[in-house]
Order: sequence, then structure tokens, then C-alpha cells
Amino acid sequence: MAIGPFTQDDLDEIYAFAVDLGRKAGKLLMERVDQRISDANGRPNSFEEKENSVDIVTQTDEDVEVFIRNALETKYPSHKFLGEEAYAKGQSRNYLIDEQPTWCIDPLDGTVNYTHIFPMFCVSIGFIVQHKPIIGVIYAPFTDQLWSSCSGRGAWLNETRRLPLIHNPTPPMPANAPSQCIFSCEWGKDRRDIPDGNMHRKIESFVNMAAEVGSRNGRGGMVHGVRSLGSATLDLADIAAGAAILLEAGGLMTTANPPDDVDTAPIEDVRLGSRLYLAIRPAGPSATETGRETQERTVREVWRRVRNLEYSRPGA
Amino acid sequence: MAIGPFTQDDLDEIYAFAVDLGRKAGKLLMERVDQRISDANGRPNSFEEKENSVDIVTQTDEDVEVFIRNALETKYPSHKFLGEEAYAKGQSRNYLIDEQPTWCIDPLDGTVNYTHIFPMFCVSIGFIVQHKPIIGVIYAPFTDQLWSSCSGRGAWLNETRRLPLIHNPTPPMPANAPSQCIFSCEWGKDRRDIPDGNMHRKIESFVNMAAEVGSRNGRGGMVHGVRSLGSATLDLADIAAGAAILLEAGGLMTTANPPDDVDTAPIEDVRLGSRLYLAIRPAGPSATETGRETQERTVREVWRRVRNLEYSRPGA
Repeated sequence: MAIGPFTQDDLDEIYAFAVDLGRKAGKLLMERVDQRISDANGRPNSFEEKENSVDIVTQTDEDVEVFIRNALETKYPSHKFLGEEAYAKGQSRNYLIDEQPTWCIDPLDGTVNYTHIFPMFCVSIGFIVQHKPIIGVIYAPFTDQLWSSCSGRGAWLNETRRLPLIHNPTPPMPANAPSQCIFSCEWGKDRRDIPDGNMHRKIESFVNMAAEVGSRNGRGGMVHGVRSLGSATLDLADIAAGAAILLEAGGLMTTANPPDDVDTAPIEDVRLGSRLYLAIRPAGPSATETGRETQERTVREVWRRVRNLEYSRPGA
Repeated sequence: MAIGPFTQDDLDEIYAFAVDLGRKAGKLLMERVDQRISDANGRPNSFEEKENSVDIVTQTDEDVEVFIRNALETKYPSHKFLGEEAYAKGQSRNYLIDEQPTWCIDPLDGTVNYTHIFPMFCVSIGFIVQHKPIIGVIYAPFTDQLWSSCSGRGAWLNETRRLPLIHNPTPPMPANAPSQCIFSCEWGKDRRDIPDGNMHRKIESFVNMAAEVGSRNGRGGMVHGVRSLGSATLDLADIAAGAAILLEAGGLMTTANPPDDVDTAPIEDVRLGSRLYLAIRPAGPSATETGRETQERTVREVWRRVRNLEYSRPGA
């Protein structure tokens, strides 16, 4: 399948390069972990370790970004590169993505986990053509797990297990979704205790999703489980690489901010560069619905249960 | 180190047997996952998969328990065995653990994750002598990660990385803990929307831990991250194997239900068989405190922020 200026052969080559690059970058992350674990010398003030950790992690983040950037700019000088640095300036990525083939990378997703050597961290490398994420590579080096996809080639775990990791044929979303679903969400960094602020709106949304059916003015969702891994990429809730892999596997990604009319608003693909994503797993048909219909029904049921969030600060 | 009737040589042999058994049981769990993923035939009603999944998972849980039980009873006929079955009867494990050497196992921890083929599930095998967990084996087959410990032999990841996975020497708990800590918690199954019920008490506790310092009448804990993996064992918050490994690595485990006087109540080792655990990571000394003191200070700070929970129903 050709996309923009790229033949499938072109894409296959770029895909192989991205997978290799993801693994190498992940190896760098693990080398730094090993250094931190074994670095027993020259630290008389061991109780200051935590401050040191944050500095070390920031440095690692930057170093791995430079490593990935250099590799991509050398191999593909005509492509555009967007890293954490561009994002950290507070710009919406919306405006940074144009017609040019663009790499969108996060050298270290799950920074807090990495700081604490909690295994859920990863390298995330996405390739975007004509505003569509078409190649995705997510590598979690601690557990040596690689999720990847390329348009036309499917989505894979460790290059051998086809995604989604559910029954074949893929089942529909449950009839009473979000009940019987796993609900993945993140608490985020905005912890201000403002009555109707983002943190409390999130909590209200989470509790709606969790509470028994029939409760909370009909909003009780009784999800099967509530999960927070601390890595938006591993939650499959964020950014280019995750979107590429989810979409290639048959998932749906749209906005988590409910529109005014949750029953009838069109369910549009989310724009990369927005801040709030709702990802629904791949789904097959039920007796009465197409797979897409079961996903869209689930989107509307989630929208009924969650509050709008407002983010004006970067990183919040 | 000898414990009860066991020499260190005895313990080493039992430990090796438990590690091997954990790996074999995990392999069984993965075989069933592979069957479920590839089982495309003979299922005309594919939309009924979810109900089927739950049955299949229950069957797997039972089969793996029988496998582990048979292996242990054949090898160690004089030891006592406690599995899910004993627990499911609603008895507190408190009363089930006596002076006899006892195996306490969970064939499938993270059942909901397993049902959804979300990688965080594991086999958990603990060995208890004189009320103390002295051998622990936790094997997560999806990511091929094995945590294990034996009294006198340390705690390990994949038998090669010594735990805890933090700096050497082990840093103290942060001066302003729980700030700068990762807080792992589980939403659980009790989703009743009762104003002062368990779910809302939990949420209040979680929000206290997360909110910025200074907020919520001084209870804002501003933890670095809030995590929910859906596997109490992998959270290191539960049961015999987890306790064995945590304690061998230098961690502390006590009750999560705050006593009446959080400032002065003794911090006792939690009794296996209770329902609510608070686990604190291994910690070294600060300039002014022993490692244990930094842990105990953190326990009291957590107790200040969490509500008592009441569990009268099994599985709630």
C-alpha cells in the first residue's frame, strides 16, 4: 500500500529502521538504569539520591532524544523531527505537524516510573505521513517488550504475536460496555485541590466509570478493572506511535473530552497534538452491530460518564 | 540460617523447587492464553466470548491450583497447603495458618487482567514457617519476570538482579514522604455507591495521597505517581509470596487501616490473612534516621491520609 510519496517497500524499510532504533534507544535507557543501581561510590550524601535521580533522568531523557534525532536526521534528512523539546515549549503539536513526513518521538515515556525504576517505561517512535500515524514502535526495555506496526503490515508484539491480543475472531465490545471492560486512565500532574478543577473532574469521571450500574444518576459504569500504569504510551492512550499501533490493530482513537451532544456528535479521529485521548480496543461484529458500531457505542457511553478537562498549562 | 525444623540447605532445596514450580505453573497460564487467542473454531456466537472467557479463566485458575497442589503434596507430604479454595470459603487466612510449615499460593493473581489478556498477571507461591513468610516466588509469564526470595539468600529479579531495584546504597524514604514516592493502590471489587462506603473511603484516601501539599486539611500527600496494576502481588501489596520477597529485600509490611493514634501506635508486622496491607519499600539511613525510622515515618504519614475500610464480605 502506497502512502503519499512512499511505496510499501519504502515503508517496510523505514519500519525496520524504526524498530532497530527503538531497541537501541531502549538499551541506552537500561544501561543508565544499571549505572544508577550499581553506582555506590562517591556519594557521601546518599540521602540526596532522589534529587540526583531527577537530574539523572532528565539528562537521560535528553541524551536518548539526541541519539534518536541524530540517527533519524542522518538516515532521513528530508523528514521532519518532533521530540520532547518541541513539545516542552508549550506549543500544541497540532501546529507542528504539516504535510511533511514527520517523526514524532518520546525518548522516555513513563518518566516518573523510570525515576523510581518501576518497569513501566518505554521509548516511543511514531512516523506520520499526511497527518496520519502510519508507523509505530514502542519498546519497553525492562521487560523487553516491543509493540510495533506499519500500515499494510499489521500490528505486532515482539514481531511475532499479532495484535490485538484477544480472541480470534476479535469479539465485539460488550453489550453493556463500559461494564466488562478494563478502563485505563492516568491521574496526571495537575494535583491542585480546586473544587471543580481538573483533578476533581478526573476523579469524578473515574468514580463514574467504576461505580456499580444504576448508581450515580445512571452514570455508574462498573468497569471490570481500573488501571493506571503511569505510562500513557503503555496505556495505549497517547501520542503518535501508540495511535499508529492501535489503529493498525483495528482500534479507535478519539477525544476524551465529551462534546455537547454525546448521542449524536460525530466520532472523529483525534488530532495528534491534542491533549486528551480516548482509545477503544479493536472489536469485531456482534449479532446486530458492526465492530465499528460496538466501538462507537462504547465511546458514547464513556463520554456520558466523564467530565471535560481544561488544560492551559503545558505538562499539567 | 536455620528456621524451625529447616536448615539452610533444606530451605535452599525448597526454594529451588518453588522457583521451578512457579515457572511451570506460569507456562500453563500462557498455554491457556495462546489457546484462547488462537481458538477461532467452533464458536458461532463470537459475541458471547466474554462470558466464555470468564468460565475459561475460572477453569484455568482451578487447574493451575491443582497442578501446584499436586506437585507440593507429592514432594512435601508433611507440609500444609492453602490455596484459593480455602480462601474462597470466606475464612480469614489468619485461622488457617498454624505452626505447621505451610504453602500459601495464588495460582493466578490478576484474574481480571488475565481475562482481558492484559500482561499483569502472575503465579504466586509463598512458604510460611512459624507464621513467617520465608520463601516467595512470583512469576509473571507474559513478560517472563520472576521475583523470588529465600530467607538468608536475598531477594532477586530473574535470579540475577538483586532487589530492591534502587540505588546502592539503598536511599532512605524521602524527607517529605509520601511526596516523591510512587503510591500503588487498587480500586477493588466493592463498587457500591454508598456515601461513606468502602469505595468512597478509598477514593478519599487516594485523592489525599495525590493532592498538592498543603491542601485537604494538611492531608495532601503529592505523591509522585498513583499506580494501579490490577495485581496485588505485582503491586507488592499482598499475600505470602509478596511479603516474603519484600521483607527479604528490606521492606516493611504493616496494616493499611490506620490505628486510633497514628503518631504513637506500634508499627507491627501485618498478620498474613488480614485484608489490608501497607507495604513500604526498602530504605537506607538518612543523616538523622535509621532506614527503619524513615520507613516508620512514612507509614505514619500514609496512615494520616487514608480512611479505615471495613470488609465483611469475602472478595469485596
